[in-house]
Amino acid sequence: MTDTVKLVSEMAGRARNARGGLAKLGDAARGRALNLASDALRKAAPDIMAANAIDMAAAKDAGLSDAMQDRLMLDESRIDAMAIAVADVADLESPLGQVIDEASPPNGLKLRRVRIPIGVIGIIYESRPNVTADAAALAIRSGNAVILRGGSEAVNSNRAIHEAFVKGLVEGGVPEGAVQLVTTQDRGAVGAMLKAQGMIDMIIPRGGKSLVERVQDEARVPVLAHLDGICHTYVHASADREMAREIVVNAKMRRTGICGAMETLLIDQDFTAPQELLSALIDAGCELRVDDALLEVEPRAVSASETDWGTEYLAPVLSARLVSDLDDAMAHIAAHGSGHTDAIIAEDKNAADRFLADVDSAIVMHNASTQFADGGEFGLGAEIGIGTGRLHARGPVALEGLTTYKWVVRGDGQARS
Amino acid sequence: MTDTVKLVSEMAGRARNARGGLAKLGDAARGRALNLASDALRKAAPDIMAANAIDMAAAKDAGLSDAMQDRLMLDESRIDAMAIAVADVADLESPLGQVIDEASPPNGLKLRRVRIPIGVIGIIYESRPNVTADAAALAIRSGNAVILRGGSEAVNSNRAIHEAFVKGLVEGGVPEGAVQLVTTQDRGAVGAMLKAQGMIDMIIPRGGKSLVERVQDEARVPVLAHLDGICHTYVHASADREMAREIVVNAKMRRTGICGAMETLLIDQDFTAPQELLSALIDAGCELRVDDALLEVEPRAVSASETDWGTEYLAPVLSARLVSDLDDAMAHIAAHGSGHTDAIIAEDKNAADRFLADVDSAIVMHNASTQFADGGEFGLGAEIGIGTGRLHARGPVALEGLTTYKWVVRGDGQARS
Repeated sequence: MTDTVKLVSEMAGRARNARGGLAKLGDAARGRALNLASDALRKAAPDIMAANAIDMAAAKDAGLSDAMQDRLMLDESRIDAMAIAVADVADLESPLGQVIDEASPPNGLKLRRVRIPIGVIGIIYESRPNVTADAAALAIRSGNAVILRGGSEAVNSNRAIHEAFVKGLVEGGVPEGAVQLVTTQDRGAVGAMLKAQGMIDMIIPRGGKSLVERVQDEARVPVLAHLDGICHTYVHASADREMAREIVVNAKMRRTGICGAMETLLIDQDFTAPQELLSALIDAGCELRVDDALLEVEPRAVSASETDWGTEYLAPVLSARLVSDLDDAMAHIAAHGSGHTDAIIAEDKNAADRFLADVDSAIVMHNASTQFADGGEFGLGAEIGIGTGRLHARGPVALEGLTTYKWVVRGDGQARS
Repeated sequence: MTDTVKLVSEMAGRARNARGGLAKLGDAARGRALNLASDALRKAAPDIMAANAIDMAAAKDAGLSDAMQDRLMLDESRIDAMAIAVADVADLESPLGQVIDEASPPNGLKLRRVRIPIGVIGIIYESRPNVTADAAALAIRSGNAVILRGGSEAVNSNRAIHEAFVKGLVEGGVPEGAVQLVTTQDRGAVGAMLKAQGMIDMIIPRGGKSLVERVQDEARVPVLAHLDGICHTYVHASADREMAREIVVNAKMRRTGICGAMETLLIDQDFTAPQELLSALIDAGCELRVDDALLEVEPRAVSASETDWGTEYLAPVLSARLVSDLDDAMAHIAAHGSGHTDAIIAEDKNAADRFLADVDSAIVMHNASTQFADGGEFGLGAEIGIGTGRLHARGPVALEGLTTYKWVVRGDGQARS
């Protein structure tokens, strides 16, 4: 066992030990502790900014891109936003103790399925230091212990945030082991977390594709994540012209870098105004990569290659294709989609219902922008991530996705015959 | 890619293709198809028995134990029972399409979480040929395609059962690829199934510990299973003497070979009649391995060694310990339990409530025998297995555990601001 593997295993042991104290505290006290953590973050703003300045100086020296430096940077208002986000999580209703269902089988037993925490969650993330507070808050609100591993660029900022956060929590009676930060720079720490079966119950990677790919590849612990968000919008023949134009431009261009951004547009050959859609996108600053049929419609577009249909651009670039009908559209999505979010724009209710029933993605939408694929927009409060796996939790995952259940059985002396 | 890996991958491809046809069929038609499969099994009884005779002869030649030969053996009445079990599954209410919850966030979208099939399930099992029909029936009832890999001892029996079953299903409109049997004897087939990420969505091993251990060790596909059923019964100081005696004997001795059988008895030092419990167990034919305190109470017992606390006997053997109080009992369970089923016998409601709240196993019980840990007894109908993992489904898993959900979002033209 290397020192790093041993370190992670000891941290996981402390996290497991913290579960009991966290459970005994109860929901109300965990909420109060999160409010204390929120206050502690605000009070520690000068320390956090000082630590962040060290990370920012190193980032400049290392020549990190402006975008990465912006993600890393913390100022008073960003720290304030972080503290508000933690207090917001404290206000969310806890799913713990919720009775999922009850039954009274003929043997006279009274059965209940009751929501409980998953146990120990591992969060592996990149340069955004606010994840340290956001993810820890969601874990604590759902009664879980958490082990955080942030990007090396943010190590000083994360350490300062973690210190303040835990100080607040401990004041509120949360065991210190409930929120731990891996600060060793050895990349083996991530590998050790991914292989800590029985010690860490679930891993959530937050970051770019290469991080998620590595996590999904190496993990033996269950992973909650999505690798790609290749979201489609299918404009049906019956679509309202104006609605289609507005939604399509929004789905692509509102923010191009989020996982719910549309990456492929499928236009029905019987839709009356394909040129209008394409031209609105180009006017909004979007590059179009299209099939031959659409190239004739909009000569300002360029020819798509086969790889375009499976590409998540996360940029003002869109692939687009003319499809012959609903089945052709759904076949395209089944072949090239990533199971994230796919939408149909249609006035024809039957076509919409078939799309919603038959497309198998985590989120399917009718007459709405795929950019709504978000825990906040779904009314879940803050989200810990979006999952495209088949099991446990899919789509936006918030507090409920950080819980599991147990069967509580009450008898009055039953022996089984 | 070896031939076997290629074979499994082609089968998984056919299974994925069968999902659409299976979905289009609808619940009622899937139920009717299962009834046809049940009829087909009954009609094929002579063929199935002839195939089984070949397996039985080989089993005798290979010197398989009487118990294993009994598990393998099929006669008219066992085939009839298999057909009835399939028809019973056909009668179960399908969870598909069930709306888990609904929401209407301020953006005006209408959200629903709707139950859908998981996709393609892989079942890996040992010598019991009835699993071929049981598991396939549960998979089809919940809209999943299934790939079956049974033990080599039962290959002829499984082939005959599978042939009849699929004949009935196909008559009922189910695509042939929805239920496939891996018949190659290459053990690499199991490995190929375990590593078929993206092609097989979940693996369920049904069999002994070495099979489950191998599956949990090698699998990259999510696994639903339990490795051990080290079930505890804690007799609290307040327990009713007669109830305690009856439940304890039942929990151990009703059937000693099932995963819900009690393996460790914890007796509170303030319980008034420990000797009565131990003597009832010995009278029922149970060997007792106990700590020093209980050895003084019942000299017919033998001394337990440290490994006894972590042993699943699946036999008329029980480990037993005197504990100082509820916390001591729960600490023992936390240290040695396997998260399967643990029970408290107590008249003191507060003690029972604390036990039910704090013990973290898939099933926790009050005043009932751990032998009730069973899908049928829980009113779930047939079970596909029992899970002790933290995610997706825990405890007895039936149809609902073979489903997942998607988010269905209906808008009226929403673009995100």
